[in-house]
Amino acid sequence: MHAYRTHNCGALRGTDAGQSVRLSGWIHRKRDHGGVLFIDLRDHFGLTQIVVGPGSPAFETLDRVRVESVVTITGDAVAREGGAVNANLATGEIEVRALEVTVQSAAVELPLPVAGDAEYPEEIRLKYRYLDLRRERLHANMMLRSGVIASLRRRMIDQGFTEFQTPILTASSPEGARDYLVPSRVHPGKFYALPQAPQMFKQLLMVAGFDRYFQIAPCFRDEDARADRSPGEFYQLDFEMSFVTQDDVFATIEPVLAGVFEENAGFGGRKPWAVTQGAFPRIPYAESMLKYGNDKPDLRNPIVIQDVSDHFRNSGFGIFAKMVEDGSIVRAIPSPGTAEKSRKFFDEMNDWARAEGYAGLGYVTRKAGEFGGPIAKNHGEAGMLAIYEQLGLGPDDGCFFAAGKEAQAAKLAGLARTRVGTTLDIIEKDTFKFCWIVDFPMFEYDEDAKKIDFSHNPFSMPQGELEALETQDPLTIKAYQYDIVCNGVELSSGAIRNHRPEIMYKAFEIAGYSQADVDRDFTGMINAFKYGAPPHGGSAPGVDRMVMLIADEPNIREVVVFPMNQKAEDLMMNAPNAATLKQLRELHIRIVE
Amino acid sequence: MHAYRTHNCGALRGTDAGQSVRLSGWIHRKRDHGGVLFIDLRDHFGLTQIVVGPGSPAFETLDRVRVESVVTITGDAVAREGGAVNANLATGEIEVRALEVTVQSAAVELPLPVAGDAEYPEEIRLKYRYLDLRRERLHANMMLRSGVIASLRRRMIDQGFTEFQTPILTASSPEGARDYLVPSRVHPGKFYALPQAPQMFKQLLMVAGFDRYFQIAPCFRDEDARADRSPGEFYQLDFEMSFVTQDDVFATIEPVLAGVFEENAGFGGRKPWAVTQGAFPRIPYAESMLKYGNDKPDLRNPIVIQDVSDHFRNSGFGIFAKMVEDGSIVRAIPSPGTAEKSRKFFDEMNDWARAEGYAGLGYVTRKAGEFGGPIAKNHGEAGMLAIYEQLGLGPDDGCFFAAGKEAQAAKLAGLARTRVGTTLDIIEKDTFKFCWIVDFPMFEYDEDAKKIDFSHNPFSMPQGELEALETQDPLTIKAYQYDIVCNGVELSSGAIRNHRPEIMYKAFEIAGYSQADVDRDFTGMINAFKYGAPPHGGSAPGVDRMVMLIADEPNIREVVVFPMNQKAEDLMMNAPNAATLKQLRELHIRIVE
Repeated sequence: MHAYRTHNCGALRGTDAGQSVRLSGWIHRKRDHGGVLFIDLRDHFGLTQIVVGPGSPAFETLDRVRVESVVTITGDAVAREGGAVNANLATGEIEVRALEVTVQSAAVELPLPVAGDAEYPEEIRLKYRYLDLRRERLHANMMLRSGVIASLRRRMIDQGFTEFQTPILTASSPEGARDYLVPSRVHPGKFYALPQAPQMFKQLLMVAGFDRYFQIAPCFRDEDARADRSPGEFYQLDFEMSFVTQDDVFATIEPVLAGVFEENAGFGGRKPWAVTQGAFPRIPYAESMLKYGNDKPDLRNPIVIQDVSDHFRNSGFGIFAKMVEDGSIVRAIPSPGTAEKSRKFFDEMNDWARAEGYAGLGYVTRKAGEFGGPIAKNHGEAGMLAIYEQLGLGPDDGCFFAAGKEAQAAKLAGLARTRVGTTLDIIEKDTFKFCWIVDFPMFEYDEDAKKIDFSHNPFSMPQGELEALETQDPLTIKAYQYDIVCNGVELSSGAIRNHRPEIMYKAFEIAGYSQADVDRDFTGMINAFKYGAPPHGGSAPGVDRMVMLIADEPNIREVVVFPMNQKAEDLMMNAPNAATLKQLRELHIRIVE
Repeated sequence: MHAYRTHNCGALRGTDAGQSVRLSGWIHRKRDHGGVLFIDLRDHFGLTQIVVGPGSPAFETLDRVRVESVVTITGDAVAREGGAVNANLATGEIEVRALEVTVQSAAVELPLPVAGDAEYPEEIRLKYRYLDLRRERLHANMMLRSGVIASLRRRMIDQGFTEFQTPILTASSPEGARDYLVPSRVHPGKFYALPQAPQMFKQLLMVAGFDRYFQIAPCFRDEDARADRSPGEFYQLDFEMSFVTQDDVFATIEPVLAGVFEENAGFGGRKPWAVTQGAFPRIPYAESMLKYGNDKPDLRNPIVIQDVSDHFRNSGFGIFAKMVEDGSIVRAIPSPGTAEKSRKFFDEMNDWARAEGYAGLGYVTRKAGEFGGPIAKNHGEAGMLAIYEQLGLGPDDGCFFAAGKEAQAAKLAGLARTRVGTTLDIIEKDTFKFCWIVDFPMFEYDEDAKKIDFSHNPFSMPQGELEALETQDPLTIKAYQYDIVCNGVELSSGAIRNHRPEIMYKAFEIAGYSQADVDRDFTGMINAFKYGAPPHGGSAPGVDRMVMLIADEPNIREVVVFPMNQKAEDLMMNAPNAATLKQLRELHIRIVE
């Protein structure tokens, strides 16, 4: 018989009754029923009920040890009697009558219980992460994460991608977020940087002729923590492809993402969530800003914002008419089925908007066709009917209005859309809705610097390429740049890259940079492109965010096995920590108090 | 038609003749045959011959651009005539008559040719790594590496392992090699360390109840470079299992390693190399030190060392007899089939041993049964015959002798064994020979400190556990520790871990450390083991070394996509580099000139 187990704790079935078995695991629960000890023995695979009667050495031992001790039980698998069968447990048809017990590891008193769902302070959970990870939910989350990553890898390989490990000790990048630096021992006064993303490397892999690259890539940004961002490191499904158009990128990655979400749609035993079928909707950036008030729309929310500025132009209704004349806009946020909502509902939305720093949120109520509220009064019934016709709203639908400069009004409308949808509980449930945001503007006007600048990524290919840069108004030029969004969460930015030095120089010239500036700041990339570069593009969906979405966990720390706390500390390993003088001397640095 | 390609450069076959096609790739070679231009167009997938006649715009363009420019060719696939068929090329039955050409990226003059096998200085190769990677051998090596890693992952998952990503920003470890440190911005004066290996984390994952963990794990040691070790980072197949004996670990990982080697045994089109079948030989440490003179034996070498000290004890032969009396030993290194070797062969071995810092290497020659050389003369024919009988040597075999203190003599014998095997060219070719080295001693006597200390890993489980520690002479206690060796290369160390605090305390006590010492230096691990730890064990075979073995490449830089040079510099990315004052200020450090 094996020293530790003939079966794991999830393996035994009714048909195994009569076998002599050995199991090892943690004592999950202990119950003493009139001198008979019932133990739930737990391992990675499941739970098995152990029974031991009084008087035996096995009883003495099991009676003595605490829960979470690790024991090896040798005994007989016995079929449970009718009423004792536990249909909720895979091993519920049998129990093991313990004959021998070996204590592999006795547990002292626990700082954190493993059985049960009690909430515990984060400090304790992180310090004793190895106990926290024994708990059912976290254990399942970690297995989900591993499954998602394994599935991504399998799907990417099936799509012809090859995984490469790019360097983790590399060079600081001139733009982007804050780098983590690593002092060099061999080169005094110099530093490596941990990569914020393997962007340069993946593009160089394309220049090197590897057709399709991917990596489950560790990325590092020395930024403060947020609920959806760990301090320190995070993982991306980083990928890049050669000789592709934007459509090729989409067609390649859609089945990978949808496939992984579908595969795990029933996580945790829930009814499987629906996943966007076929090609993901493609929403131009400008349309997204109008309809959803942001560039990461949650398509589960049925509300669609519309521009209604024209209705107020020369309308006579004081405030909105004047604002529109001065170049402001008015956006309508439909609020369907609110006939029975009290005035308080509408006023609270207005209060919320003011609390957020906006001038306020106008509204119109409607019940059985009757409009209410100051805007309706001022704008008149005919005017309101025209607006409602445009919006497709009915006799019992309300509506909010966000007015102001375009960017401000769009943003407020977007926030209001989310708030209205949430408050009215009309956000579709149990579904993953993907979309692409496309046609990002290449340039924008920087009001502070009074000049044209790149609006997002300077390295994306402008639509229309060199000709567009030479002939179009820069502010009308779009880029081959795209975001993947799921349920209002931006999973990644991506782009068809600008692989042609002459287009790169021209784009930077428009943003006010000389060829010498480009050659100095982006030497490596520009040089590489001069030795024959293929057209290429890619993206890098966030792995942690995907797992959070699938697990329906709002906090990233629930899907990372050993996370740091909000203050960028690992409480279990005691990191960061003091260095020795010898270490500092070897690295040619000194601490500045 | 797709913007860039209807087929890749390795796709077209004779049956595609007549099709209108579009290909994109790099101009690998250009040949002008009497005004007709022949181009080998290359991409990741292969080469296709492009033909263009004079006078057309396509000709003008292709004639003008340099090799390694990226072009898109549109034209007709045409069957090649009998003699023009290239049987060495997958696409050799067709060629493409170019009608249109688009230059996607024009190459300037190259610092390093891509076509051909010319050797180039490492400096140039690393600076222009994206060009070097286009070369056939390196491209194939990188694809091999990716394939090996993907195969390891698949096989580990098939064996029930789950991959977890352990932290890269973590705590400095008290023992081991030199850490890379990362200054903390949030905690002035404190530092993260990059992990030398995820040892603590994988053991904590076992304590957390995940049954089988693995990771293709990036590891970091700030050590100087060697041919088989990159400065900076390297990768391990890190794994750990719960509720296992040493035999379970072996049985689990043997098919994974043998499988990966077998899968790639025919790398580069060679005749597939043989791979150890079934269970790998298990060689106790003491036996390995005796027979092979080291703990990483190359079993392709048929020479087996034997101890022949007893033959010289009281033999009267001056030097050896006296040495043996003083506690030295004599080891014999058979040198079979050397009847026709000149005296020079034997003398050069002796010179080599002296150059290595040893007193010398004795030898006996033999031809048609006739012994020769000073040792034979002194020891006499009867004595020599007895030695030869023990060694199983015949009338035309020579033999070398290494004498000295055991450790020294064993080491010299091991080096001589390799040198004799290589010089005689009797090392088996085209084969991967695996073995386990087992039964490492738990403790050793430290001659300098005049005390007993751990000989390898203090965290391995001693064989016999607590009882052995309490009752045996410590120097006779073996550990459940094991190395995997292939062709003389140590792929990894591993162990069944000591998961019991009481055994840990006792083991450290023997090595002279108090319980307080252990609690202070290994707080995290000792604490975790007090909350219920399973028996567990694992190992971490080096991925880079596996790929080097399979690719038959002696230098690690040939199997890493973007390696640093020997001075720990990335010449392509210019790392390490100076940091800005702002960066240093944020990190609370100053450079010491």
